[in-house]
Order: sequence, then C-alpha cells, then structure tokens
Amino acid sequence: MKIKVLRDILGANEQIARKNRELLEKNKVFAVNIMASPGAGKTSLVLQTIKALRDKVKVGVIEGDISSSIDAQTVGKEGVPVVQINTGGECHLDANMIQNALNNLPLKEIDLLLIENVGNLVCPAEFNLGEHRKVLVASVPEGDDKPHKYPLMFTTVDAVVLNKTDLLPYVKFNTDAFTKAVKGINAKVAIFPVSCTTGNGIPAWSKWLKAQMRPARNK
Amino acid sequence: MKIKVLRDILGANEQIARKNRELLEKNKVFAVNIMASPGAGKTSLVLQTIKALRDKVKVGVIEGDISSSIDAQTVGKEGVPVVQINTGGECHLDANMIQNALNNLPLKEIDLLLIENVGNLVCPAEFNLGEHRKVLVASVPEGDDKPHKYPLMFTTVDAVVLNKTDLLPYVKFNTDAFTKAVKGINAKVAIFPVSCTTGNGIPAWSKWLKAQMRPARNK
Repeated sequence: MKIKVLRDILGANEQIARKNRELLEKNKVFAVNIMASPGAGKTSLVLQTIKALRDKVKVGVIEGDISSSIDAQTVGKEGVPVVQINTGGECHLDANMIQNALNNLPLKEIDLLLIENVGNLVCPAEFNLGEHRKVLVASVPEGDDKPHKYPLMFTTVDAVVLNKTDLLPYVKFNTDAFTKAVKGINAKVAIFPVSCTTGNGIPAWSKWLKAQMRPARNK
Repeated sequence: MKIKVLRDILGANEQIARKNRELLEKNKVFAVNIMASPGAGKTSLVLQTIKALRDKVKVGVIEGDISSSIDAQTVGKEGVPVVQINTGGECHLDANMIQNALNNLPLKEIDLLLIENVGNLVCPAEFNLGEHRKVLVASVPEGDDKPHKYPLMFTTVDAVVLNKTDLLPYVKFNTDAFTKAVKGINAKVAIFPVSCTTGNGIPAWSKWLKAQMRPARNK
C-alpha cells in the first residue's frame, strides 16, 4: 500500500512536471535542477554561474529550502529575479511547488532558470520538476565514496560538479577513485572539478551549461 | 490523504520503536541514533567513539546506508559486532529495520549500540528507532547556516557533534554564530566541537556519552 501511494504521488508529479516543461519551452527558458547534500555549495555555484553567464544570458533562480529565506536574500543581491520556496518539512522540491514558483517569475525575461533543490542526496532524485538538465554538486570534504552510497542520485544526473577542490590538500579524497566510481554508475555524465571559493573550474562548467542551452532555445 | 498515510506510517513505526526500546532495556543496551548529512563524518565518529570507550564498555554498531557495505566493513575491522542495513532507496532508517538488525546482534554482549543512520538532514528526524539518545554530526565545511535550514533535525537531537574543526582555518565558518543558532532552536542541546581526523574534542564527547549511559543501565 505504501508503494501504491508513492506511485500515485509520482504519477501526479510527472503530469505537472510535463506542464512545467511546456510552460518553460513556450517562454524559451532552459531550466536546471541543482541537487546536493546540505552545504556542498549549491548556492555558491548558483552565484558563480550568474557571474560567469550574466553578460550572455538572463538568469532567474528558484531557491528551495525546508525553512528560511537566507539563500534567496543572498542571490537577490545579484539583481536577478528569485523566488524562495519553503517546503515546510518536505525533503525535496516537487513539480507542484515549481508550478507555483514559475507563476511568480517574469519568464519572458529569463533564458536560464537555476533551481536549487533542498539539500538531500536521496529524495530529490525521484521527483522530476520539468527541468531540462539535472546537476549534482558533490564536494571534496564529503569524501570519495558517495557514488557507492547514493547511486540513484548519481545515475539520474547529467553533470556532476565536484566543488571545494581548494580543500584537496587538507582532506583525504582520491579524485581518480571518485571519477571512476561516478563513471561506473553513469558513463555519460560530465564531471567538472571546481572551487566556488577561488573560481577554479567555473569557466569549463559554465561553458558546458551554455552549450546545453542551445537545442532548447532553438526549438 | 497524503498526510493521513504519513500518520499511519509514523504510528506503526512508533509501536515498533517501543518494542525495540523494551528489547534494548531488557538486555541493558544503551542505543544512540547518529544522524548527519552525507559525508559529515558519522562513520569516523563511530570509529573514534569505539576507540575512546572500548576499554570501558562493549560497543556494537548498526550501519544504515541506501546501498553498499563500505561502512560495516570499515567498522568490522575494529572487532566489534556490526550489522549493515541497506534501505534499498529509503532515505532513513525506521524502527522495523532496527528490529530486524537487533535480532542479528549479540545483545547480551553489548552495552552501547551506535546506530549510524542514512546520510540525510531531513527524513531521519521524523522516525524514532527506540534509541535512548539522538545525536547530530554537523561538519565545518557544510557551513554555519544549517540550523536555520534544517530546524527539525536540530530540535530533535540531544547533542550536536561539530566535526572537522581541523578545517576551520581553510573555510568560512563562524563557530559563535553556529552555536548561537543551535541554542536558539534547542536550548538544552550539548555541543561538542571535534576533529575525527586529529582526535581533538573526542574525550569530552565520549565522556558525555558514557555519562548518559548510567541511568538506563541502572534501571
């Protein structure tokens, strides 16, 4: 019975996700669902991405948190449209929450929509939001064994951004072992080592992201 | 309807949690539910706690992960009884999983049972396992804003272990702001700054844990 209920929820979510996708494409908005553990650096990546791409594309942001509006306030200082979703206990964003947020964003003025999910390596992987790409932010201090422990998340994403590479000298982390584990689960995934503190690796990541946008915007 | 189902699940969980508690107390086992984000250092804290207390108490371990038996293998090398639970997708341990694990542990030979939950700052907070104490492992690289973003987890625990203090020189983290935020949510919580890499702070943590065991064992 528990499984039946989960299927109903996922089925309803999928329908709304499709509507979100239609609305996004009608408005030529390319949407990216950014997922990660708490504190891996999702907001820092959003900020770095805005800085890297703001001269080329108009960015909008949806911030997802269980509680607080800290991230929306931080991102809002960059002068881009931002909506904060507070899930009030739910451990992930769902398509319905995104539908409401889309109704509160100036979609005609946005080319690239960055959606920051709730910090959680498990539940967000199960819920499509209508996004065009899914991205996971992993971070060096979390350790190189995470692909083995959270395989669904690593399977479901189009790119893995490995953040906090500036901490490599101070923690045990085998980059080769991490890369091999990720590729073993998801051979096609793109991996970008970055440091949102120093800016290292951000050009390669933002170039990839910009290139992803082309097909959807030319539709 | 979704809420009704969640209530049913939590109600059933609570009943099994009570049975687990009875079984633990019958065998004079003191159980601790250790929760954290992925990669905050739960397993490292389990290892340090075994080393600190093994001369005084007999330790047993339950390792919870969605997938893999990496942690059970690591802990097993310490020569303590350990059971690995693979939740197969579930984002938290529940009382039923613990009931099965307890049936596979030599409870008469254990004084202190360390239960490592799935890496997740959200869902594990909602499910009692029958444990005597709940402990959260936070870590310095995650940032000092986590209490504002995951309030239920910080409300529900008896102690917060702040791990990876050896990284304080290399990341932005305001220990005073973190402590103030934690105490603002949960005034009675004990906070232990530690480094599982250097061993700093482990004596204070393990002394507290040992002291907690007294009332339950004298019952």
